[in-house]
Amino acid sequence: MRMYDLIEKKKKGGVLSKNEIRWMIDGFTNGELPDYQMSAMMMAICFRGLSARETLDLTVAMRDSGDSLDLSGIHGIKADKHSTGGVGDKTSLALAPIIASLGLPVAKMSGRGLGYTGGTIDKLECFPNFSSDLTKERFIENVNQVGLAIAGQTANLAPADKKLYALRDVTATVDQMSLIASSIMSKKLAAGSDIIVLDVKTGSGAFMKKLPDAEELAETMVSIGVMAGKKIAAVITEMDQPLGNAVGNSLEVIEAVEALSGKGPKDLMEVVYALGSQILLLADVCQTQEEAIGLMCESVASGAAKRKLAEFVEAQGGDASYVYDTSKFERAVYAVKVLSRKEGFVSGIQAEVIGNVCMMCGGGRKKKGDAIDLSVGILLQKKRGDFVKKGETLAVVYVNSQEKGELAAQQVASAYTIGETEPQKEAMVKKVIKGSNE
Amino acid sequence: MRMYDLIEKKKKGGVLSKNEIRWMIDGFTNGELPDYQMSAMMMAICFRGLSARETLDLTVAMRDSGDSLDLSGIHGIKADKHSTGGVGDKTSLALAPIIASLGLPVAKMSGRGLGYTGGTIDKLECFPNFSSDLTKERFIENVNQVGLAIAGQTANLAPADKKLYALRDVTATVDQMSLIASSIMSKKLAAGSDIIVLDVKTGSGAFMKKLPDAEELAETMVSIGVMAGKKIAAVITEMDQPLGNAVGNSLEVIEAVEALSGKGPKDLMEVVYALGSQILLLADVCQTQEEAIGLMCESVASGAAKRKLAEFVEAQGGDASYVYDTSKFERAVYAVKVLSRKEGFVSGIQAEVIGNVCMMCGGGRKKKGDAIDLSVGILLQKKRGDFVKKGETLAVVYVNSQEKGELAAQQVASAYTIGETEPQKEAMVKKVIKGSNE
Repeated sequence: MRMYDLIEKKKKGGVLSKNEIRWMIDGFTNGELPDYQMSAMMMAICFRGLSARETLDLTVAMRDSGDSLDLSGIHGIKADKHSTGGVGDKTSLALAPIIASLGLPVAKMSGRGLGYTGGTIDKLECFPNFSSDLTKERFIENVNQVGLAIAGQTANLAPADKKLYALRDVTATVDQMSLIASSIMSKKLAAGSDIIVLDVKTGSGAFMKKLPDAEELAETMVSIGVMAGKKIAAVITEMDQPLGNAVGNSLEVIEAVEALSGKGPKDLMEVVYALGSQILLLADVCQTQEEAIGLMCESVASGAAKRKLAEFVEAQGGDASYVYDTSKFERAVYAVKVLSRKEGFVSGIQAEVIGNVCMMCGGGRKKKGDAIDLSVGILLQKKRGDFVKKGETLAVVYVNSQEKGELAAQQVASAYTIGETEPQKEAMVKKVIKGSNE
Repeated sequence: MRMYDLIEKKKKGGVLSKNEIRWMIDGFTNGELPDYQMSAMMMAICFRGLSARETLDLTVAMRDSGDSLDLSGIHGIKADKHSTGGVGDKTSLALAPIIASLGLPVAKMSGRGLGYTGGTIDKLECFPNFSSDLTKERFIENVNQVGLAIAGQTANLAPADKKLYALRDVTATVDQMSLIASSIMSKKLAAGSDIIVLDVKTGSGAFMKKLPDAEELAETMVSIGVMAGKKIAAVITEMDQPLGNAVGNSLEVIEAVEALSGKGPKDLMEVVYALGSQILLLADVCQTQEEAIGLMCESVASGAAKRKLAEFVEAQGGDASYVYDTSKFERAVYAVKVLSRKEGFVSGIQAEVIGNVCMMCGGGRKKKGDAIDLSVGILLQKKRGDFVKKGETLAVVYVNSQEKGELAAQQVASAYTIGETEPQKEAMVKKVIKGSNE
């Protein structure tokens, strides 16, 4: 087999065989295939696309390029949840303990934040001494004992994807639907859960700015999951304004704890319950969405979910007392108020701008490996649809440098659009795409 | 400037600016720009194309990546001729002395053969001690004294093209019209002649198999030449069967000498006169094609052209006595006849097959740097349109190994198609495309 022939085939609109894709990914992973041939192939794929079968074969080849987690040591049906990334997205922190408290084991691999989007591992490190660095054995043991474990890089999952993404990132070949879907799904398949529920964000603060693109991505990923034998569903949720009120690591953890105390913001809870009910339905824990939401509300109301969070934090070495006293979380030195310059209805808050402000204040990474300041962030006091008077507080910026605070406040103000008429209500859940294994 | 942005721009169908193209080619030439970004760009160009202006800018940027020959030391209007490559193409060997004998200086850079096509430098080395390795000073001096010099790699012409072609060659991005045209023209522009006449081959033995493709390539190259201020024309000629009767280095030189003795094959002379008349017209040596052909025929008939060949060979160190006694050229040991297995009209001879047989016999290179056997080759005794009886000789294979000779003869036989009816006559010159500088 020659890579030249495969590139030419794809360039001419041909379909690559399973063997050809496997050979290509194996050669690329072990360094036999040069980057310049792979980048030409990626560009040809951007123009010609991949069939559903090719996309599955690519995903599976990347999954098999490294370790696959064997979760058979965990009793019961294992659930995983993945978000395509947004601003203020603390869904996992609230959802995972709820699901675990209902008896479904959650074995989750998470990442760190990059750019304007945050990461669950960073947020969890707001609990002093929390460690996401678990051996495979410890990971499985914790899920069996606590019902929930969240790990960072426990295994060498899909190294081909890591290498390929790095190449796509510098050759303008990221935005191809099949490539995005196979990148996400190769890691999810390698992570070994039986149930996968995907939160595909759409809107100005999401990677998929437009709903049809989000739908296509969701459908592609669900289709891969089904063909790979997983129970899978995707929920397309709104990410035009930040999710919830808090943006920034410790602020978001506090909000997640509040959510488990029955005081979560409405939009966040909508997303949590939408994703959670898909998991419970796929696991056959219940038969209707109403029933699922009922179970989850009960878990929150009874304090079971919050106790599960504490139990999980403690099991991974963290200080669980913070769950019961959120004032213990590290706070930034300065709180700078963002005041409204006019009266009217908030018609939009650009999520991307808010995410970038948080990064600029030190709460996010420009590049991998950057140190971050967990204490900084933004608390939104007004969100879309809210009425605001001139001079009223729109948001508060928490920051450790007064200078940065002033600049940040200006930028947060500019992220708000205030109009004269009340904006239309937007549904948080745009669409649910279920995989059918029948 | 970031290469990422340029790739993305082209991918989306945008037009690159002159500065962007220059920056890209400079960075690629000096190694700052990685191959994997350049190959992604080349693939994007294969799908999106280049505008006429982008193609010119790319050509000029590649021309300027190395030396440009300064031919101002040569008196008069300097002419150059380039062929896109074919089988049995000894046109330059016959044409250059004719043009030079008419008082127009010919300063030509030539290459070596690769694959099934031959190269002028290899052919010239059939003259013992001939050297194409001239300094710039010597090259110019020879043109001034003799009227004709042919050099190999006298200068570092268009190194960007060399590097880019090598990358395109392994990433399936060769067959894009603007890229092909700019590759050829960057070297021709750097070679410094005032007049450029292009021989664009079309047919089964040519790189451009189809006439419309050959036309597009010719038009693109002529357009680049015009914009770069050159006097330029392209002649599209047939390359379905080999040109002339001889294929193989010394056999082709002998045929070229015969052409200058008034005994050249008709198809070869047609191409020689078509290209030559374009040069003479562009140089204002004459005003009509008839006049031009008249001058050339006269030069051949009087022996002036042949004397010019001898003078030129001698000036570059070669043994010019061979021009007057072609029996001196090295001959292969075995002559294997290829007999016709049926009676009928020759309706076609696959040029590519004949070229490959010659290479297989040792007369061509599989890869750059391979040693070649100048003595081997094929002499076609029947060409398209000829009637042949069963058992009559179609061709003779000259070879230095009996075993190879048998195999070669079989393959040459298979290259012939013999039909019952006389095939239609094909014009050698398909089209002439003239550049207009007005």
